[in-house]
Amino acid sequence: MGSVTFEDILAAARRIAPYAHRTPVLTSSGIDGIVGAQLFFKCENFQRVGAFKFRGASNAVFSLADETAARGVLTHSSGNHAAALALSSRLRGIPATVVMPSSSPAVKRAAVEGYGARIVICEPTLASREATAERVRLETGGELIHPYDNDAVIAGQGTAALELMEEVPDLDLVLAPVGGGGLASGTGVAVAGASPLTRVIGVEPAGADDAFRSLQAGRIIPQTDPRTIADGLRTSLAPRTFDLIRRHLTDIVTVEEEEIIAAMRLIWERMKIVIEPSSAVPFAALLARKVDLPYRRAGVILSGGNVDLDHLPWAK
Amino acid sequence: MGSVTFEDILAAARRIAPYAHRTPVLTSSGIDGIVGAQLFFKCENFQRVGAFKFRGASNAVFSLADETAARGVLTHSSGNHAAALALSSRLRGIPATVVMPSSSPAVKRAAVEGYGARIVICEPTLASREATAERVRLETGGELIHPYDNDAVIAGQGTAALELMEEVPDLDLVLAPVGGGGLASGTGVAVAGASPLTRVIGVEPAGADDAFRSLQAGRIIPQTDPRTIADGLRTSLAPRTFDLIRRHLTDIVTVEEEEIIAAMRLIWERMKIVIEPSSAVPFAALLARKVDLPYRRAGVILSGGNVDLDHLPWAK
Repeated sequence: MGSVTFEDILAAARRIAPYAHRTPVLTSSGIDGIVGAQLFFKCENFQRVGAFKFRGASNAVFSLADETAARGVLTHSSGNHAAALALSSRLRGIPATVVMPSSSPAVKRAAVEGYGARIVICEPTLASREATAERVRLETGGELIHPYDNDAVIAGQGTAALELMEEVPDLDLVLAPVGGGGLASGTGVAVAGASPLTRVIGVEPAGADDAFRSLQAGRIIPQTDPRTIADGLRTSLAPRTFDLIRRHLTDIVTVEEEEIIAAMRLIWERMKIVIEPSSAVPFAALLARKVDLPYRRAGVILSGGNVDLDHLPWAK
Repeated sequence: MGSVTFEDILAAARRIAPYAHRTPVLTSSGIDGIVGAQLFFKCENFQRVGAFKFRGASNAVFSLADETAARGVLTHSSGNHAAALALSSRLRGIPATVVMPSSSPAVKRAAVEGYGARIVICEPTLASREATAERVRLETGGELIHPYDNDAVIAGQGTAALELMEEVPDLDLVLAPVGGGGLASGTGVAVAGASPLTRVIGVEPAGADDAFRSLQAGRIIPQTDPRTIADGLRTSLAPRTFDLIRRHLTDIVTVEEEEIIAAMRLIWERMKIVIEPSSAVPFAALLARKVDLPYRRAGVILSGGNVDLDHLPWAK
């Protein structure tokens, strides 16, 4: 557990290269002027399925031995990981099952089905989710690919920061959002290996600040009743991601909802790209001056772009 | 008049290279699957001031002889050309005046002032606009840079298609929106020079189809009472653009409002980029099967990304 190394990330980068997009790094002189530093945005909103989750899911699926893979994979998720696992499985030609709560929006089910995965509906409770996933696992003999509490997934997520550092050397700082901690963990390991002097800061919504509180307490404090529009960041750390974050991140900072919305809107307006609320969280920390470290050059991982265009957070 | 040549576009590309962004060409396998062809989107929404207009304005401003430039430039426009001329003038260090109707939104005035231009307000009529511009011209001795009825502007706009063809050879088709015709004209000249076998099609909203009707009639029929959300395409052709479009475009096709909105939304959803309604018009022609020519590879010029995020066309 917690054994993800820099070599694992390098191996993941080679493994997923035929399937994942090498996403662009964008800059904006207007935003640099506002923040007073040079920012480099790693655009995982342009990744396949619209989020960094494809990196971890595809690394996990293509890491499986043939005989294991043949029995298929499964997960419980209603978000980007479900779509990422479905597409990864289709690319490998193996079956995938996604356990989704009955409360999932139809559009999310359609996306997963569109990639050819089977959906099993469960009650919208954690207990039902886990019990249903366990039943599917026993029935199919498939491999459960957890959205973040999985070494191959974490290693895959670290490839985004790896590419960023290949393209932009000498970063003082890299920022990543923290939900379950897969992206933040992978980013921490990647930066420690590729650029040891670069600091890594995780950013959380104040309304879902379990990682912040867990680091302060020195033990995992699960998130109960998360309240944030950053729907990708409502989950709690797992032991694996807590350990890696504690070892590799300099700090965790939190941002308020209105700071997330302002950051999201500024990126849409100035950079002309569509990002989801969770993606705006790291930039919000810079925009709202929540990062105390001095920095001249910072990398910001924009995690995804799957947003409901009918319900934008600034809509009146 | 109408004397813009391929050499003019090559010269414009060299002239504006230090100032303009070389914008990316993006692709989407999802959209290719829907349309049944390979599409290459030239992303002028990522251009400075958020629109291709910076190419023409900067080429015009940097083409002026020093003594002319010193007296400054002016234009009448409330849109992207005004911001583009303001920024170009600031980069050259010369004064700029923009005549804007009193009905212009405050946000557009602020953008132009933010680039350091002087604004002169006029009544919201064509007569007042032209009279006010003429008064400013006499007072300042400045050079009027028309948004499209200007050879240097047209040559500048053609550099977008030039870059597209440098990056993506063997296009069967290039599509551009048609408003006043500056972009369509420049695109026509660029494609004819760089890739003579590639066809160029202009696309217009059905509610502002003056170019379509003008080509059919063989003479300019000005647009009266345009009705379209594609606010960049409400203007009429000028003699200069009419002539170039007639010589270099294979066809003009028109699209309905709902087709523009569907195309705009699909690009936001699948490509995760922000484009304005005018930008979606060429792609709408492909999506709605309005192009009869057979094609396998098409270039689509996305003209800009300046959209009011509080009033999106699909808002309920």
